[in-house]
Amino acid sequence: MASPLSVALIGAGNVAWHLGRALEQAGNHVVLVYSRTLVKAEFLSETLLHAHPTQNPDFSLVAADVFIIALKDDVVVEFLKKAVFPRSSLVVHTSGSLPLTIFEQHAAIRGGVFYPVQTFSRAVAMDLKQTPIGIEASTPDDVSLLKNLAFSISEKVFDLPSDARKVIHLAAVFACNFTNHLLGISHDLLTQQQLNFTVLQPLVTETIQKAFAHAPFQVQTGPAVRFDQKIIEQHQQLLQDKPDYAEVYALLTEHIQKKAQEIAKLDQ
Amino acid sequence: MASPLSVALIGAGNVAWHLGRALEQAGNHVVLVYSRTLVKAEFLSETLLHAHPTQNPDFSLVAADVFIIALKDDVVVEFLKKAVFPRSSLVVHTSGSLPLTIFEQHAAIRGGVFYPVQTFSRAVAMDLKQTPIGIEASTPDDVSLLKNLAFSISEKVFDLPSDARKVIHLAAVFACNFTNHLLGISHDLLTQQQLNFTVLQPLVTETIQKAFAHAPFQVQTGPAVRFDQKIIEQHQQLLQDKPDYAEVYALLTEHIQKKAQEIAKLDQ
Repeated sequence: MASPLSVALIGAGNVAWHLGRALEQAGNHVVLVYSRTLVKAEFLSETLLHAHPTQNPDFSLVAADVFIIALKDDVVVEFLKKAVFPRSSLVVHTSGSLPLTIFEQHAAIRGGVFYPVQTFSRAVAMDLKQTPIGIEASTPDDVSLLKNLAFSISEKVFDLPSDARKVIHLAAVFACNFTNHLLGISHDLLTQQQLNFTVLQPLVTETIQKAFAHAPFQVQTGPAVRFDQKIIEQHQQLLQDKPDYAEVYALLTEHIQKKAQEIAKLDQ
Repeated sequence: MASPLSVALIGAGNVAWHLGRALEQAGNHVVLVYSRTLVKAEFLSETLLHAHPTQNPDFSLVAADVFIIALKDDVVVEFLKKAVFPRSSLVVHTSGSLPLTIFEQHAAIRGGVFYPVQTFSRAVAMDLKQTPIGIEASTPDDVSLLKNLAFSISEKVFDLPSDARKVIHLAAVFACNFTNHLLGISHDLLTQQQLNFTVLQPLVTETIQKAFAHAPFQVQTGPAVRFDQKIIEQHQQLLQDKPDYAEVYALLTEHIQKKAQEIAKLDQ
């Protein structure tokens, strides 16, 4: 096993909570928790053995092998402008959408990325072992250090350049954020009729498993791909007082049918 | 435990395979398997203890407590026109979208619905215990008989009138069929960049679990709900050669933002 590292956590949100716990359980030392709101830093650091809470972004006296920034994507660049790190520190962010180049303006530090491809809720305990972690850095030594750190908490560590990370993030918007909106429509349709959303849970779970066991377009089911016009019209009838849902229904039905025709052509 | 029933299976597709196996394992007798293609009926009946294969839709000599029609939705009505059942037989369909009233023209039989809210692949072994089964019939006695049969294979049996079943079916189109299409887009974006789709599996699984543990609209995440215009533009840039995907992206982003504004207003 690689030797344990010392880590400073910048942030006290969901990502910081899960990373902090997992890194410590793997034998690393979390030496510091920073949050703009001191009580949040205190709250997290109390659950960790060696962590010092702070709201001061001057880290010049903090000795850490890695500073992990686990802040919201849209505040990271601003944070880097005000933060002070010991010269030549390795500072990484955990974002799916920010490129490695955000560190270029900060020549005194070594930049890197430590991106867990997962969504975190503080309330839900989570075993990170199966969570993929994408790594990027400017030098082979830093890549190697970050990979060791990542492998201490996950079995699925991989090289992930900024361009590919952007595509993963975009793909995740379709597979997760947009999917969640569809589940919201489904939930709304059911609860409006006093039906319980959980009735669909086994079906959704099975659908997801099937999609990952095959290529999803190849296992498409439902009235759209069957070109079952009668059912489609029945559904549009049911949605006539819900123009937004009807619009989503029409567009996705059209696209499923278009894709089915493309696949049929390729199979000829 | 209720006394075992004798069941005739009309159909030899995925639904028939799973129902046949589960009903027999629960102690019921599957006495017949019908398929328009005899070899399919034979193939399934060989896996069952007492089943006789047939391609003859004249069932007048078949003694069964229940005839279960597990055919594709769009052929059921035509099939009922040509089939012959013993007088007063209980005949049920397994469809989410067909109403109980399709049996009205067939006064000599008792109609019913036995709707497993699940998607079936023959290749995937499946424990039906957690699969909800919605029941409908014209008389309390038939409802009771069908519930006994359903409870022999599932813990989640419930009364489901045709109107409510239609809404469940519509909700499932959003939650499963449309979701699968989004996963297809995601898969396509990743594989085009030589990235492995499975990198998203833990994230998708967690997203689904979160959606069912809460109301999905309340746990929406991503650039749309954050009104993160910079990331949204970056994504639209990445999709500029894929107008279909860009169209889905634009519509769902717009709807997520509209819904977020509605929720914010309600919370005021």
